[in-house]
Order: sequence, then structure tokens, then C-alpha cells
Amino acid sequence: MTATAATKFELITTDGVARRGRLSTAHGEINTPAFMPVGTAGTVKAMMPEDVATTGAEIILGNTYHLMLRPTAERVARLGGLHKFMNWPKPILTDSGGYQVFSLSKRRTINEKGVTFQSHIDGAKVKLTPERSIEIQRLLGTNITMVLDECTEWPISEEDARKSMELSIRWAARCKTAFEQRPGFGLFGIVQGSMYPELRRESVAHLKNIGFEGYAIGGLAIGEPQEEMFEVLEYTVPALPKGRPHYLMGVGKPADIVGAVMRGIDMFDCVIPTRSGRTGQAFVRGGSLNLRNAKHVEDSRPLDVACRCQVCANYNRAYLHHLIKAGEMLAGMLLTFHNLHYYQDLMAQIRGSIESGTMSDFVTTFDREQRTGAVISETE
Amino acid sequence: MTATAATKFELITTDGVARRGRLSTAHGEINTPAFMPVGTAGTVKAMMPEDVATTGAEIILGNTYHLMLRPTAERVARLGGLHKFMNWPKPILTDSGGYQVFSLSKRRTINEKGVTFQSHIDGAKVKLTPERSIEIQRLLGTNITMVLDECTEWPISEEDARKSMELSIRWAARCKTAFEQRPGFGLFGIVQGSMYPELRRESVAHLKNIGFEGYAIGGLAIGEPQEEMFEVLEYTVPALPKGRPHYLMGVGKPADIVGAVMRGIDMFDCVIPTRSGRTGQAFVRGGSLNLRNAKHVEDSRPLDVACRCQVCANYNRAYLHHLIKAGEMLAGMLLTFHNLHYYQDLMAQIRGSIESGTMSDFVTTFDREQRTGAVISETE
Repeated sequence: MTATAATKFELITTDGVARRGRLSTAHGEINTPAFMPVGTAGTVKAMMPEDVATTGAEIILGNTYHLMLRPTAERVARLGGLHKFMNWPKPILTDSGGYQVFSLSKRRTINEKGVTFQSHIDGAKVKLTPERSIEIQRLLGTNITMVLDECTEWPISEEDARKSMELSIRWAARCKTAFEQRPGFGLFGIVQGSMYPELRRESVAHLKNIGFEGYAIGGLAIGEPQEEMFEVLEYTVPALPKGRPHYLMGVGKPADIVGAVMRGIDMFDCVIPTRSGRTGQAFVRGGSLNLRNAKHVEDSRPLDVACRCQVCANYNRAYLHHLIKAGEMLAGMLLTFHNLHYYQDLMAQIRGSIESGTMSDFVTTFDREQRTGAVISETE
Repeated sequence: MTATAATKFELITTDGVARRGRLSTAHGEINTPAFMPVGTAGTVKAMMPEDVATTGAEIILGNTYHLMLRPTAERVARLGGLHKFMNWPKPILTDSGGYQVFSLSKRRTINEKGVTFQSHIDGAKVKLTPERSIEIQRLLGTNITMVLDECTEWPISEEDARKSMELSIRWAARCKTAFEQRPGFGLFGIVQGSMYPELRRESVAHLKNIGFEGYAIGGLAIGEPQEEMFEVLEYTVPALPKGRPHYLMGVGKPADIVGAVMRGIDMFDCVIPTRSGRTGQAFVRGGSLNLRNAKHVEDSRPLDVACRCQVCANYNRAYLHHLIKAGEMLAGMLLTFHNLHYYQDLMAQIRGSIESGTMSDFVTTFDREQRTGAVISETE
């Protein structure tokens, strides 16, 4: 059994293990490696949707958990779907709701059928099954639907990791059955198995047997050291189908992304650039600046002289520091814009380096900037 | 003694008492009647500066009180002035700091020399004199500087109002002396005298004798009924020089603005459109909508079908309601944008009506919409 080509993935070129590709959906193309800004509750926080596109984003991620509770999937569907509701005409990927059920909700109980939890909004008892997760994502009108999986903690025993992985596989099969094939809309499976190579390999084998449009690596970026994450990628990604996109869920910091691309990952999502922007942190070459710090109070330099975003063109560190101290919303708006631009620019540089076969040079420069602090060290 | 033509005001045409003019400054022209969005602490709250211009604003107001305390006028000056600091290249008017000293600060003491108050930020003791207010506004680089005046409460006895008005006149004369004349930068006087015709007339006579680039009416929009405000305008504005702009400070709601234009006012500022936007209120024809209200939960209509702003083009009431319930910043961003667009569109309609001599028709329609609730009533 293989997936029908509901979404098309073209592998344009490779540079070592790093891959340059293009994923086509009903709402447009996504050049990979791609970073997906997170639009939790139908908005990429602190951003006008038009500006999200301006930063270079070609796809965003929506959270099924948040949207199913408020405004509800049925309401979004009656209002014309998530693209229209939030004025984002480009592709949308939604997670299955599983991760947030395990991290945000209270009093959850899990069994073969699914998971029952208490809403963090109004305390209501809510059920989420593989079939319901697929239905919700269909109602939202998402281009890339994720299967419902159980998210384990780190660390976890091999026995518990196996039980959980096997449950996630049975749920993945139910998701595949429930998913309605339509041109330009696809279903991705999620590899589980924690830090156990044998479990990861079994998970991949099962998922390939079911057949998906893309393959995500789940259960990472949950507190484990970067080396452990990379290790999992090194033995898991080679087992994935080469002709399908590989998506590392919830990752990550810039160095995590660069390292994961070098291990064959095509897609990423993470709240770091947006959340950091709202708490006064700006990503620059070599690391990040904390704009709350008093040392910026009269610094007339942009966040990063090499950055071509409109925030760096028009505002200096002193102004951003002032906005933070004054509690002004514009601080979060400008820093989020800059951070998303930084991430999208990073992905564009990665794609260009793969195309020109210079990815190892790019990584050398990137690593040196991270080691020396680049822009950061100029400031101290 | 008359003011030098540091800013140029051209009275283009009139329609009854309503005036259509153009004020020229070093940073550009302002078509009047004009509404100035308030950019308290170096930012029009929840708005990208580029978007403030998109709504049609040609000038914004900055608050001397806030900026002198943080980041301080000297720091703004060292960073290149307020226009550059906040990325607003168009004209800026700053108030004198007086109003906020009287409304926001604690433990203030006033004497002939000036006012001493405690900062609401860090409790520091701060002095503000007419000369210091002018110096601060010069350091900020403001195009239109306001004189420091004492702001009285409403109601107030005639005796107290007279004492205060006379002090404000002496301060106004000191401001004029302290103000450095430069082409494209002007100083406005402020008429005081509360609700007492004789005091208002005396205040105007004194100010004309000192000579200013423009004349503001102060001491209104502080709790008095609209009729009392209009009454003050009716006996005060005719006494003002016709060749200078007339500015009604801190006003107001759309109906206040329309009524004041009909009584010869050229300039307005108010926090209502921005503050309302951040608290879920949207201005529409005939009144306002409270988007917090549950009745909007699945309303697929824009805020106002006749509005041509990008918020009304791209988002519906259900989405705005959702953003508010979810506590998302985008709610305040979108509603502030719409409200500022509403205000600027109102001013554009007023200017067009004066030009074509149809201001009374405009007022008839406006009043009918206010009376019937226009858009509001469609929703109930």
C-alpha cells in the first residue's frame, strides 16, 4: 500500500546528505529546506499575515489542539476554512493536537481508542481520537495533515517507548484510513521510538508500509541534548523514503536546523523565533541579543548590520530597548518580524548553498560565527 | 509682536465656518481638518509606523511627559531626534507635558516658576518649567511645539480659572521667548479659561498679543458635556486669527470632531481610536461595535461593508472576536488599524465636503447615521 501523490515532492538536488526540494500543495509551493512559523490560534503571534509572507515564509503551522477548542473546527469550516479565516492564502500544515494534549491539558487519560482531556480554556472534557484529529484537520482545510501520535517524555524506558510507538503506529493506520484523499492535500506519518534505534527503525518500517505523503520525526526537541537528537536523525533519516519530505517537528534553534539539514531534514517548525521576539530576544549572526539589557539603551546600531529586514533598516537597538522598557506592543511586533526574517534568511542561505554544492562551506562559516559570537561579541 | 512664518498655513477654502486648509512644516504638509494619532512613548500603540501613514495620517502627536522621563529628550536628541528614533518621517506635534503632569504624576507642586512632580515610572522628582518644556521639544525635534500651560479641572470656579489662565499666559510668554525660530518649526499657544467666555476672550487676546504660529483650545474634553464644549468653541474660535490653524486638544469622538469642524477647528488629537482598538471596540458608520460581544462569534461580515481598509477587506467579525477571546496581539493591531483608518477617512470626507461646499449635507447624513446606529443596527 502506498500513498497517492496528493502532494507532489520534487527532490531538486542534494549536497551530501543535505537535500534541496520543492513540495507542491493546493495552496502553493514550498521550497525546502523550509521553516514553518507557528500560528497557534489562527495567528502567527504579533504579526500581520501579510508580513509573515514578507519575511519569506511559504507555509505556516496551525495547532489543532488550540483551534479545536476555540473557535472550534466546525466554526472555522463554516467561516470558509483556516486559510480564509486568518487571511493566509499559502499552504498550512496542522499538527494533530497530540503534542499539546500531552503538554498543555490536565487530567488526560489515554487508551487504545484515543485520549480524553480537560480543556485548558474552560475545563470541559474533550475526546481526541485518530479519526477525530483527521476530521478536525479536514474541517480546518489544512494542506498537510499530521497523524495523531502519543508523545512520550524524555527520558523513557525502552519498554514504555515500545508500547507507545506501537500504539502510535496503530493510530497512524487509523488516520490513514480516515484521511480523505484530495489533490494538493497530504497526510504525514510521524516516526516515534525515543532514543532507541531499533524502535525508530521499526516505526519507520510500519509507517512506510502504511504509506504517507511525508514522514516526520517526532519525540525530539523535548529536552534531550542536541547530540542525542542528531544521533537519532543519523540512524532514522536514512531509512525514510528519499522521494518524500522529511520533517523534524518542533525544531529548533538555528544551529539545530543547520545540523538537521546536514542529516537530511527538509522541514521544520518552532515557536522560538516568535516567542523570543515577544520576550526581547533577537537572533543575529552568531547567536542572539537580549534587548532588555541596559547596555542597549543608547546603541544606535541595528540589530545586525548585515540583516536586510525592514526592522534593521529602520530601527536601532536603543529604540527596541526603549519599547521593551515602556511595555509597548511594537517591541514584540518588530522583534518577531526580525526573528522570522532571520530564520527565513537562514533557510534561503541553506537552500542556496545546497544548490551550489557549498553547504560544507556554509556550515563552516555558520559554526565559526556561533563559536565566536559574531555580532554578539562586537557588542560586549 | 507677531509670530514669524516658521510654519506656513494656507486657508484653501471655507464652507460656512468650516475651514479647509494646509499647514506646511519642515517634514511635510498637513491637510486640515486633520486628525493626529497619538504616539505617546515614541510609538502609535500596536501600529507599525509605516501602517500609520497607510491609514492616511499626515502628522502624529508625541507626549513630552512620557518621552522626557523615558528615554529622555537628551537621549532622543543624541540618537538623531524623534522622527528618526521612531521611523516617522512626517510632521510631529508634541504637547508640552503639562496635561500629563496634572493627570498622571503624583505629588505635584506648582508655582510661578513651573511644576515639580514625581515620575510615575521610578518616583524621581522632576521639574518642568516653560523653558524646560520648550527645550525638551526642541531636543525631540518636534515640528509643532506647544506652550506649557496649567490644566484645570472641570468644573472650576471663575476665580480659580482666572488665576490659572493668567499663569498660563505668563508661561506662554516665557515659552515664546525660549522658543528658537527655525523655518518649518512652529510654536502654538493654548487658550484657557474653562467655561467662562470673558476668560477665554482675555486668554485669546493675550496670546494674539504674544503671537503664535497656531492657536489651540485647551481645558476641554475633560469630562464636560459635548454642548458645553461646543459652546466654548462658539465664542472662542471666532476670536482666533483666521490665518492660523485652530487646534482642539484631546478631542475626540467622531461626533465631537464633526461638530468642532463646523465651529472652525482645523486640528485634533485623541487616544480614542487607538485605545478603543486595544480594548475590542471598532468605529463604524453610526457608532461602534464591541467585538468582545458573543454575538460576533460566527459573524462572517467585515466590521463595516462600506470601509475600504485592509482589515475590512481581509478579516471578518468572527475572526476579530476569536483573536480577542484568545488574547492575541493581532486583535489590537487590526482594530487599531481599522479605527485609525476610520478617523482618517472621516477627515478626508470632511475635507472633501468643505471643498465642494456640501458640508451641511455631510453633517445631515452623519447625524442620521449616528441617530439610527447605521451599521450597528444591522447587527442587533
